[in-house]
Amino acid sequence: MANKGLLIILSAPSGAGKSTLISLLKRDFPSLEFSISYTTRKPRPGEVHGRDYFFVSETEFLQLRDNAFFAEWAKVHAHYYGTPKNQVLESLQKGKDIIFDIDVQGAKQVRANLKKGVFIFIFPPSLKELKNRLQKRQTDDPQTIELRLKNAIEEIKEAHFFDYWIINDKLEQAYSQLKSIIIAEKLKPCYQPENLIEEIIKDE
Amino acid sequence: MANKGLLIILSAPSGAGKSTLISLLKRDFPSLEFSISYTTRKPRPGEVHGRDYFFVSETEFLQLRDNAFFAEWAKVHAHYYGTPKNQVLESLQKGKDIIFDIDVQGAKQVRANLKKGVFIFIFPPSLKELKNRLQKRQTDDPQTIELRLKNAIEEIKEAHFFDYWIINDKLEQAYSQLKSIIIAEKLKPCYQPENLIEEIIKDE
Repeated sequence: MANKGLLIILSAPSGAGKSTLISLLKRDFPSLEFSISYTTRKPRPGEVHGRDYFFVSETEFLQLRDNAFFAEWAKVHAHYYGTPKNQVLESLQKGKDIIFDIDVQGAKQVRANLKKGVFIFIFPPSLKELKNRLQKRQTDDPQTIELRLKNAIEEIKEAHFFDYWIINDKLEQAYSQLKSIIIAEKLKPCYQPENLIEEIIKDE
Repeated sequence: MANKGLLIILSAPSGAGKSTLISLLKRDFPSLEFSISYTTRKPRPGEVHGRDYFFVSETEFLQLRDNAFFAEWAKVHAHYYGTPKNQVLESLQKGKDIIFDIDVQGAKQVRANLKKGVFIFIFPPSLKELKNRLQKRQTDDPQTIELRLKNAIEEIKEAHFFDYWIINDKLEQAYSQLKSIIIAEKLKPCYQPENLIEEIIKDE
């Protein structure tokens, strides 16, 4: 009876197409929740506290971290980021399905801290294709692209940690596979009404 | 590396729509294999030994059974039926996906004997609707229908044994859910090429 909502953890190397897949999920599953992270970086123009992030000081963040407030946290480019644990657990308890869009290290922390979740890894079809995609985006200089590729290799090597593997070669197929995983997981008995069997049997 | 092909076990009370779902799977997944059972009953007109069943004597059947030849077996209306174990394991080893269409007791034997498989239970939306469907078929007398309903209740009570639950209210939706389960299961790392990670990383 622990599970009510479904917790989905999606990880992928930069350029594997995770953001596109997530925006399709948002379109088709409007009830899916995305956890709001805490961060110590300053808000960018247009970002709203409590909607995009919870913006906190470093002292505040470290205090929260030391009180096991986060399901996962990381320091990226001198700033801290963290996913609050209780907010997620409360939403799951209410039957809401939640998606975490985090890296492999974050995924490992979530599994260790929450002891639940469906862990999905998105592969690019090949490193060559990943490089192509990163170059086409025209957002990174060659050095950054090389770094992203190096990180991608490290992340892909840890894919064995995940429950499901999707190769994002053709977006439509990858998305259809992602939807199938979510549909299938929700068909497990732990996500169905507790009294389902009694309801079906009694109805004579 | 034990898993290569996927073993799917489908159980449902009589009248829940399992046969229709299976015929749709046969249409859409022509590579799916169905295990050929052994039986001690006589062939009916048109039935072919080695295609529909392996027809054997009772002595032969009991010998096979005592040699742990079957993944599951049962005695139904004075005749024995059994699913051969090695044939299934060899097919899985070759990467073939196989479906077992068996009752709850058979499903339990399969889990105990093969220690693998994805176990799916199909519910009717309600007992009332199940009765309607059985009456509409016009193949059973009222007494047989009552017996089927009694058996259905016993089977539904054991649904907790299964990995996935599908409620066959609308056929189209139930079938879509069944397909999602098969697609999702095949995305688990154990069903994907062993060298997938190496292939993706090396391709620079």
